[in-house]
Amino acid sequence: MTFTANRRRLLQFGALASAGLTAAPAFAAQPADRKMGYAIMGLGTYADVILPRFAECRHSRVTALVSGSMEKARRYAAQYGVPDRGLYTYDTFDSIRDNPEVDIVYVILPNGLHHEYTLRAAAAGKHVMCEKPMANTAAEAEAMIAACRAADRKLMIGYRSHFESNNREAIRVARSGELGKLRIVTAETGFNIGDPTQWRLNRALAGGGSMMDIGIYSLQAARYLTGEEPVSVSAVESTDRTDIRFKEVEDTINFLLKFPSGVVADCVSTYGSAHNRYRIVGTGGWLDAEPATAYRGNSLKLWKDGQTAAHPAPDLATNQFSGMLDHLSQCVMTGSEPIVAGEEGLRDMRIIEAIYASAREGRTIIL
Amino acid sequence: MTFTANRRRLLQFGALASAGLTAAPAFAAQPADRKMGYAIMGLGTYADVILPRFAECRHSRVTALVSGSMEKARRYAAQYGVPDRGLYTYDTFDSIRDNPEVDIVYVILPNGLHHEYTLRAAAAGKHVMCEKPMANTAAEAEAMIAACRAADRKLMIGYRSHFESNNREAIRVARSGELGKLRIVTAETGFNIGDPTQWRLNRALAGGGSMMDIGIYSLQAARYLTGEEPVSVSAVESTDRTDIRFKEVEDTINFLLKFPSGVVADCVSTYGSAHNRYRIVGTGGWLDAEPATAYRGNSLKLWKDGQTAAHPAPDLATNQFSGMLDHLSQCVMTGSEPIVAGEEGLRDMRIIEAIYASAREGRTIIL
Repeated sequence: MTFTANRRRLLQFGALASAGLTAAPAFAAQPADRKMGYAIMGLGTYADVILPRFAECRHSRVTALVSGSMEKARRYAAQYGVPDRGLYTYDTFDSIRDNPEVDIVYVILPNGLHHEYTLRAAAAGKHVMCEKPMANTAAEAEAMIAACRAADRKLMIGYRSHFESNNREAIRVARSGELGKLRIVTAETGFNIGDPTQWRLNRALAGGGSMMDIGIYSLQAARYLTGEEPVSVSAVESTDRTDIRFKEVEDTINFLLKFPSGVVADCVSTYGSAHNRYRIVGTGGWLDAEPATAYRGNSLKLWKDGQTAAHPAPDLATNQFSGMLDHLSQCVMTGSEPIVAGEEGLRDMRIIEAIYASAREGRTIIL
Repeated sequence: MTFTANRRRLLQFGALASAGLTAAPAFAAQPADRKMGYAIMGLGTYADVILPRFAECRHSRVTALVSGSMEKARRYAAQYGVPDRGLYTYDTFDSIRDNPEVDIVYVILPNGLHHEYTLRAAAAGKHVMCEKPMANTAAEAEAMIAACRAADRKLMIGYRSHFESNNREAIRVARSGELGKLRIVTAETGFNIGDPTQWRLNRALAGGGSMMDIGIYSLQAARYLTGEEPVSVSAVESTDRTDIRFKEVEDTINFLLKFPSGVVADCVSTYGSAHNRYRIVGTGGWLDAEPATAYRGNSLKLWKDGQTAAHPAPDLATNQFSGMLDHLSQCVMTGSEPIVAGEEGLRDMRIIEAIYASAREGRTIIL
């Protein structure tokens, strides 16, 4: 990376930090050849998204794989250059403590297993990247934070949008005053879920339905766009329990969040139809993202002074995946805290529990 | 109008009716030269929008004006060709009963006066077009319906969107099955209100704040797109009572409506920021309107099979204003009921009262 590129990157994140954002990711200078070793735990569809992105990382490499199937692990190992000594099953996982090539365990298991394997990774002396949602419950999330703290290990949640150029630009615009005083956020995330046998529709493994999986993006957007924590939540659930997919978990659960500044966020979470957008509206204009949190192709448009125009985000030196992976590596190397540490995941879990309670009890929950 | 144009018009509305829409407006053949006489009551900013549209009407003309200022009335009379015998103040208004050139009184007064002047118009033997919101309260709306029924006079609410081509096309698409099973509506209406001394910010005259004036468009959209009546409402208010504009009425009041089919509508109503859009989302795609309910320039786009495209609405022979005005004229001439009669206004008033109660009490109100 040239000085110029590095400076641009620092400036981009620096500007965000000075606007009162979540702390800028650590980009302190590191030896160019120093890479933290990741163990990827769980070789499902999202691992297929993550694994190829290590090729774009500057400070992260894959040194281990954890799978229920050694045959599958060997196949992935051949593809991604992982040595045999880095292959584990869930039964042999605890011996990863003896593998000095592994610094970080990336837990990409079903939600209901995040708690157990984060604790086991910390007990094995490894730092942890844990996929969202952090856990099935806030109580589990608290235990995960405590375990990592006791083991003096970093814990980060895989909130990739915080490292994606359009989302970072949206945060910058929202907090810059360019939209005037912020008033309303609308955020919609959802898809029409298929296979009724998948773990996401199993309560023990998923912890809940659309809210845990996809509604959390709407919640995150409302929080990171405003930079505020909600003071109340009012939610409405709509689930057809005769639909074979929704025997155990909710389909649609929409919610209104009220923030201390007076901003209200209207959020959609659904497993019934396709949504991937948000808009933040101030007294002086709005910024609209659609798609907002896709793996690629995210797009912004800005309305001001009666005109709507495309609003291209400045390029970042990293994409959302390599940026996220390298961020934790750099936090480990420098001893700094991730911008989306376990505490950030816990905040979401507490709000999600309030959303469920509000829908169940038919009342506004004060947070 | 040629036979072809007339037929196209009938077909357009006929197709809507057969899809289970609100009844098609009456377009029975009328003598081309027969026009109902309107008295425009209240010469404020919206009268300035309505008055020029009579030139485009086939069955409606202005024959009287009612104003607090005879000087203003005479100025408007000169501009719109209204004879001196058709000019009234609020004091002399009741004598309109003796004016055979007036068939319909269009009440464009502040909301708090709709009840009184609808009753006085009906007592004078005139049919009534009443601006939205129908009244300050559901009780007033009920009395207005009863008074017009007792006098055997028509009562219609000025819900212009029902006569606007994009909105009619949106209703057609929503109910055609083209979007699959309907799941979610998002509807946002709002603007950043100015002059703190205007009647819209006075509780006695306006009955409430943004909800009464502009939020009712979000509510209407949710109802006319789905063709359903909500079974519950959950609302959150956000008003800065230190803002001089909001001493008496609410700024933002957002609400979630749940419908019998399981559709949930997320609605924004605000006097704090600019919003004019809705989207209806089904299992198979969505239709987006932005602007959705402007005086002109409304625009639709459709997302299906992964592609977003502009969705032009078929031309109607009338615009939303002339269509609305002529509809009531034709109902009067044929004895049929308006598609947005007083009962439609009353439905909204009852839901609005539930929205206020929900926000005040912090609970979901079952309707």
